Amino acid sequence: MDHSTLLMPFLSRLQRDGSLSPAAPPVLRRLSDMRGHYAHVPPEMGDPEIYRVYALEVPERASELPCSTTVLQPGTVGEEFFMTKGHFHRQRDRSEVYLGLAGRGLLVLATEEGDHRVQPIEPETVNYVPGGWGHRAVNVGEEPLVFFATYVGDAGHDYQTVERFGFPVRILRGPQGPRIVHTPPRER
Amino acid sequence: MDHSTLLMPFLSRLQRDGSLSPAAPPVLRRLSDMRGHYAHVPPEMGDPEIYRVYALEVPERASELPCSTTVLQPGTVGEEFFMTKGHFHRQRDRSEVYLGLAGRGLLVLATEEGDHRVQPIEPETVNYVPGGWGHRAVNVGEEPLVFFATYVGDAGHDYQTVERFGFPVRILRGPQGPRIVHTPPRER
Repeated sequence: MDHSTLLMPFLSRLQRDGSLSPAAPPVLRRLSDMRGHYAHVPPEMGDPEIYRVYALEVPERASELPCSTTVLQPGTVGEEFFMTKGHFHRQRDRSEVYLGLAGRGLLVLATEEGDHRVQPIEPETVNYVPGGWGHRAVNVGEEPLVFFATYVGDAGHDYQTVERFGFPVRILRGPQGPRIVHTPPRER
Repeated sequence: MDHSTLLMPFLSRLQRDGSLSPAAPPVLRRLSDMRGHYAHVPPEMGDPEIYRVYALEVPERASELPCSTTVLQPGTVGEEFFMTKGHFHRQRDRSEVYLGLAGRGLLVLATEEGDHRVQPIEPETVNYVPGGWGHRAVNVGEEPLVFFATYVGDAGHDYQTVERFGFPVRILRGPQGPRIVHTPPRER
């Protein structure tokens, strides 16, 4: 067989801070990187780190499984819990798997037709994100939310659909815990 | 888009015994299911359970990520530590990822050309198993070894190549811990 495009086996380790080592340099998302995603950004918010992603260095092709951990900080923007941008896969049928590692979060899943689901992400959870479902993680706890994710390597990322249409629900801090609030299309 | 073949999102949870719930009924491998894999089977061994696999119910196609946990018991067959059968992927370029969850093990990786690697599998390890590398897990600890695995869904399983040619090394119990012993082809 032609081995020229095959990778060599490698080992990475999950660290106490939720990073993977070895991994590529982390991708950092600050509030200023997420314009349009939160309903209301108080002017005094500054520019906190919202999350960072530590990805293994694996090519984005159909034979591979790009892997990462995400460390999503606790906090809110107004009433809205810190969350990831969320995305669909460019190849819509490609699936993704999340494993909760630390903290307490919610996974918001939505189709382009407006159907949605909300699932817990926490230690011991395995979330199966099928093709066609956009997905966003939300930290509803007081500690960093850490999860592992892997997807079919040729999936591609479509952030634009989320930026244009938003998700059908927002997760807000309420007096009795997280509130799932339906968002009319014009307010997404 | 055509949603007729897309799955619905679902959530499974890792249980204390290493199983996933919900999952398909476990696949159980006893010593009698592993004829030819161990170098010497003492006649008094009986037929102990070696391992079981708890798989999520996901179709085996290119868009999906079949996921499972494996619970590999501690013990030896003669001097040789309990291990999985090991396999190549039928589609040789398809990769797989392991996450160590509990216990202490080794992952033996080998190409058909006889190259090999041995990596730890234990809590916090992420093992990347590239296309072309057959792989087998070995429990070198005193507790069950539990790991999570996922692969590109159209990989397929080729057990025959391992049954025919074996792996280039065996992992034996030694006075100072596990010994990696090279196996001449005729003794595999």
